[in-house]
Amino acid sequence: MATPKPKWLTASEQQAWRAFLVASQLVDERLDRQLQRDAGMPHAYYAILVGLSEAPHRSVRMSELARRLRYSQSRLTHAISSMERNGWVERRDCDTDRRGQLVGITAAGASALADAAPGHVAEVRAAVFDRLNAEQVGQLAEICAQIITGMDEPETARRRRAPPRGGG
Amino acid sequence: MATPKPKWLTASEQQAWRAFLVASQLVDERLDRQLQRDAGMPHAYYAILVGLSEAPHRSVRMSELARRLRYSQSRLTHAISSMERNGWVERRDCDTDRRGQLVGITAAGASALADAAPGHVAEVRAAVFDRLNAEQVGQLAEICAQIITGMDEPETARRRRAPPRGGG
Repeated sequence: MATPKPKWLTASEQQAWRAFLVASQLVDERLDRQLQRDAGMPHAYYAILVGLSEAPHRSVRMSELARRLRYSQSRLTHAISSMERNGWVERRDCDTDRRGQLVGITAAGASALADAAPGHVAEVRAAVFDRLNAEQVGQLAEICAQIITGMDEPETARRRRAPPRGGG
Repeated sequence: MATPKPKWLTASEQQAWRAFLVASQLVDERLDRQLQRDAGMPHAYYAILVGLSEAPHRSVRMSELARRLRYSQSRLTHAISSMERNGWVERRDCDTDRRGQLVGITAAGASALADAAPGHVAEVRAAVFDRLNAEQVGQLAEICAQIITGMDEPETARRRRAPPRGGG
């Protein structure tokens, strides 16, 4: 099979790529550490509690929550089972869809979230937003939104649109 | 203890923060999936091979490699042990520092890296750089570098510099 010549990253792309990898890893580790230490939960549980607290009626279909958080079904199920044991969430069958399962936040979950939120927000500020000006906040939102949009396109659409390979 | 009033994220900060979390998670999962599928290694091993291949004499102190990749010592040791079993890296004691241990890339490791690189770079392009213009590449590099710099400051320096809390 003919291998197309790789289009290596330019120096500035490489710089951006490595900085992005390191920054996202450091931010992820730091936020997880802070939440584990101060609230006894990993970052993923916090995100789930936020998602549930914002849902209408404070409950949502498991599949919809997985889609919104971009978690795999198995990752979400694992987290929800553990959070259920903490008494933070509860599952029940969906009245209108026999295959669907709803998950909702309990009073204890809402209270855990309320307790965790101030320390978490302070850490997010210290890690990210204290460093950036308003213009950069907009740039970061735009850049990440474009990456997400690209990632959500089906593989076939990406392939169709990709420039022809090889040559050079 | 008096609790300072939390300075919640503004709408635009919240938008940027959520997009950053989702984008970094999706990029991380996608790159890891691609490397596992096509090269039989997680993304972390790829980053280690790159780090070693760029080091002078193709070997580096374990502590220095951990620092450069921002991996914990235990995470790096675990990865290196597994890569050693693959024959991709080798450890040896440092001549000039009895406490230091050097790790180097083997010919098999260099070959695994060379085989993996074209597919990996194509995936990085598809996931990130095909979406961004040159200006955004520069913005992303700058934003992430600022986040990293902030994270590298010792905690005490951050506290000293932080604006006074409370009020409002």
